Amino acid sequence: MASTHYPELKALLREAALMNSVSSLLDWDQETYMPHAAAPMRSDQKSLVATLAHERRTSPRLGELLAHCESDKSLTKADSESAANLREIRRDYDLATKLPKELVAEMAKVGSQAQEAWKVARAASDFKAFLPWLTKMFDLSRKKAECYGAPAGGELYDALLNEYEPGITAKEIDAIFTPLRKDLTDLVARVAASKTKVSTKCLELRIDPTQQHAFGQAVLAAMGFDLNAGRLDTTAHPFCSGLAAGDTRLTTRYRDEKFTDALYGTMHEGGHGLYEQGLPKMDGEKDAGLFGQPLADAVSLGIHESQSRMWENFVGRSKPFWKWALPKAQKTLSPKLKKFEVKDLFAAVNTVKPSLIRVEADEGTYNMHVMIRFELERAMLQGDLAPKDLPEAWNARYKDYLGIDVPDDRRGCLQDVHWSFGLVGYFPTYTLGNLYAAQLWEKINADLPDLSKDMGKGKFIDLREWLGTNIHRHGRRYRASELCQRATGKPLSPTHLLQHLETKAAVVYGL
Amino acid sequence: MASTHYPELKALLREAALMNSVSSLLDWDQETYMPHAAAPMRSDQKSLVATLAHERRTSPRLGELLAHCESDKSLTKADSESAANLREIRRDYDLATKLPKELVAEMAKVGSQAQEAWKVARAASDFKAFLPWLTKMFDLSRKKAECYGAPAGGELYDALLNEYEPGITAKEIDAIFTPLRKDLTDLVARVAASKTKVSTKCLELRIDPTQQHAFGQAVLAAMGFDLNAGRLDTTAHPFCSGLAAGDTRLTTRYRDEKFTDALYGTMHEGGHGLYEQGLPKMDGEKDAGLFGQPLADAVSLGIHESQSRMWENFVGRSKPFWKWALPKAQKTLSPKLKKFEVKDLFAAVNTVKPSLIRVEADEGTYNMHVMIRFELERAMLQGDLAPKDLPEAWNARYKDYLGIDVPDDRRGCLQDVHWSFGLVGYFPTYTLGNLYAAQLWEKINADLPDLSKDMGKGKFIDLREWLGTNIHRHGRRYRASELCQRATGKPLSPTHLLQHLETKAAVVYGL
Repeated sequence: MASTHYPELKALLREAALMNSVSSLLDWDQETYMPHAAAPMRSDQKSLVATLAHERRTSPRLGELLAHCESDKSLTKADSESAANLREIRRDYDLATKLPKELVAEMAKVGSQAQEAWKVARAASDFKAFLPWLTKMFDLSRKKAECYGAPAGGELYDALLNEYEPGITAKEIDAIFTPLRKDLTDLVARVAASKTKVSTKCLELRIDPTQQHAFGQAVLAAMGFDLNAGRLDTTAHPFCSGLAAGDTRLTTRYRDEKFTDALYGTMHEGGHGLYEQGLPKMDGEKDAGLFGQPLADAVSLGIHESQSRMWENFVGRSKPFWKWALPKAQKTLSPKLKKFEVKDLFAAVNTVKPSLIRVEADEGTYNMHVMIRFELERAMLQGDLAPKDLPEAWNARYKDYLGIDVPDDRRGCLQDVHWSFGLVGYFPTYTLGNLYAAQLWEKINADLPDLSKDMGKGKFIDLREWLGTNIHRHGRRYRASELCQRATGKPLSPTHLLQHLETKAAVVYGL
Repeated sequence: MASTHYPELKALLREAALMNSVSSLLDWDQETYMPHAAAPMRSDQKSLVATLAHERRTSPRLGELLAHCESDKSLTKADSESAANLREIRRDYDLATKLPKELVAEMAKVGSQAQEAWKVARAASDFKAFLPWLTKMFDLSRKKAECYGAPAGGELYDALLNEYEPGITAKEIDAIFTPLRKDLTDLVARVAASKTKVSTKCLELRIDPTQQHAFGQAVLAAMGFDLNAGRLDTTAHPFCSGLAAGDTRLTTRYRDEKFTDALYGTMHEGGHGLYEQGLPKMDGEKDAGLFGQPLADAVSLGIHESQSRMWENFVGRSKPFWKWALPKAQKTLSPKLKKFEVKDLFAAVNTVKPSLIRVEADEGTYNMHVMIRFELERAMLQGDLAPKDLPEAWNARYKDYLGIDVPDDRRGCLQDVHWSFGLVGYFPTYTLGNLYAAQLWEKINADLPDLSKDMGKGKFIDLREWLGTNIHRHGRRYRASELCQRATGKPLSPTHLLQHLETKAAVVYGL
């Protein structure tokens, strides 16, 4: 007779995941439609639901069941689904139970105060006002890392990385980022020295948000995002919430000018959304599906970001995409677009120009912003950089890597919200996403020789199926590095992204 | 030292109410924005949250705390807030714990099947197909009533009434409904015999839903509904969800023609919404407020409905309202409305004509539909009418009271969803609402002699404040009958509603 431990374990996880999905709905609603005056009560609702979810994720019963299953040989055969599932359940359980309750509560409380202090300090460009909070949050993050413990031969920072990008180490990231940074610094300098001036006139048209929304939905539908199992709304900050099986919600924001902002926001979140829809949360045959089990979850933030950046940059900023999309845009967005050709759009959305703000950076310079943050947070966590010296270190790197002067801390080290609520070890996943995307893209084009031609006709089905087969359906069965090796036949390397950016710059700037 | 039992009891209730509010958000989202494919998972989310809420409402600890408080003399002084609160907490606890779990589960399961069967049967106008389900649901309702137990000297039906309209009995309702029915039958007959033909041309214009929505929001704002603490959306069936403090959500539906459908839907739900916003859920001084305590809940469905019907019919279908609203409608809805005068709108929205479908009935005949259902469900519960004989009894009453022939069961006894999921004892609250509204309206106009003049200028603040002071702020402190007595100085009587309808018919039909 088969043991009932594994089914019971899965049922418990499913209940925890259901609570999480309710929590995600509370978040989504707060960002989209919740009346303003509901905010105080919403925080009570969220904290109650979070507590109930946490109780389930950390329950002693879960620990017992997990231990039983781990000693059951029928479940732990090498390369079996159950073995992978149990490995990841163990990881989650340890992450959830290794931190003392008091530390979790303190991080939540101080983080929420620090975030408010950050808002005020950023608006006033007043680093000194934020410094005590930054110091506290790094102290708490260090405590958290110590509770998790550094991996053998690794450093404390690795313990934090592990939350977002399981298995990777700071050393490995460094080995990829350092050569990439040098090559990108060189590329950016060559672009700056180029005499080619790129016109962005084609992006300076006023376009009604309602039409932009309809256009965005049409692009999502072409990408294969199932709008019957998801939706697109408007929020201050775009996001994707894969909140449950059959329920993936995207948001974007519209400006009257520069319609590509909302379009690329939509394609970016759409890429995340396709990943969420491709995860085996729902079993076609059975109602239950794998929802709640690691096998139905995304493997890492880096891989998640590879999916969004692929659709945003490798598809959306390509010539074939505009070959298909421009006539549609001319028809439904603005007849004024008829003055422009595919090459105009391609050049305008691929300008490379060093700038101060990460979230507004172009594809060519974006990773420099990320690498600067990685270097600085790693040094601060290890105690090699004192928080008080952050502005100086920040500004020196912007000068060094991007050749620009930071005029004030508002546009410098106070620009990101992450550190204020203790997100340390998160930034590098943005660039890992770009690297994975580039490496996957090369392999995809080798496997699908007609892809460019297809994209020019708005046909993305082969691309989506490739991603579904090689990435989405695996969930967390393989760690990100193994998934990369299996999908591309090679370990992660910076050469593919560099090649991609060099090729674009060559076309746009005639380098 | 003050006992900690009462604070602990209130904290437990607050947690249960928070879970209920999450449940309401899941419902609201399902009706408004949820992607279609999310339905299976939504039912899992709802069932988990419902279980958690139920556990809190029925927890033995709640019972212990309640018993402690009930024996604490400092909490049970006559006329004190705490005494009223404890009285209602006891009522809720008994209602929640008196039913065996198995019966609750069976009613939920059979009810959900019966509702599906009802949909099919109604579409096919096939009463025989629905009969077994109707029989089952009445059997289960009878069991439920037996678990609650009939009050001393009362009948089983009273135990069900008590869920929706605490304290009232079938006998009391009968004593009000029977004379009203006779007088209304007479009024309807006189209208039918009148030679006046009322034109409804002014309602037959095509008006864009977007403009209707903006108009509805402007009316809500004038009514004093706080759109910063609520919203208006579109659903298949309009509703109001007072889901939490600062969070009251209304919905309506738009047709291209007959813009007054959506308008009155909006004003109706807006009346419910003003009640919800007027309940003392949030304390201006303290964060917590009374949210979760009976003192912050609506007293009964009848009183709730009195608020919605007052704004819909007594305000919205009045001449002063149209004096204010027509120029606005002419400007923002359609210039074609300029052909019409206030008296045209007043007459068109106050036609009286017997019809088959309750939810489409006019103000004059609506209560007849309700009374028929009350008589029939009371008889079926008591065993005086066999479910198989329902169509015959139904059709006989429609002929008798409204003078019309029912052509088929689809437009007859199969038209309402209520019985299919065991809502027995609910229907009379619709008419109780109209009766309360009429009686309150008379007193309000006596207290506020300028009300008609004010309404003609779109000034509703005195009305809203009267309702806030006399109804909303009391929550469940007084039972509905006592609230009526306190607010109007008289027990509930049918004369006020009859007078109101007679007066309107006199103007519109020259009776």
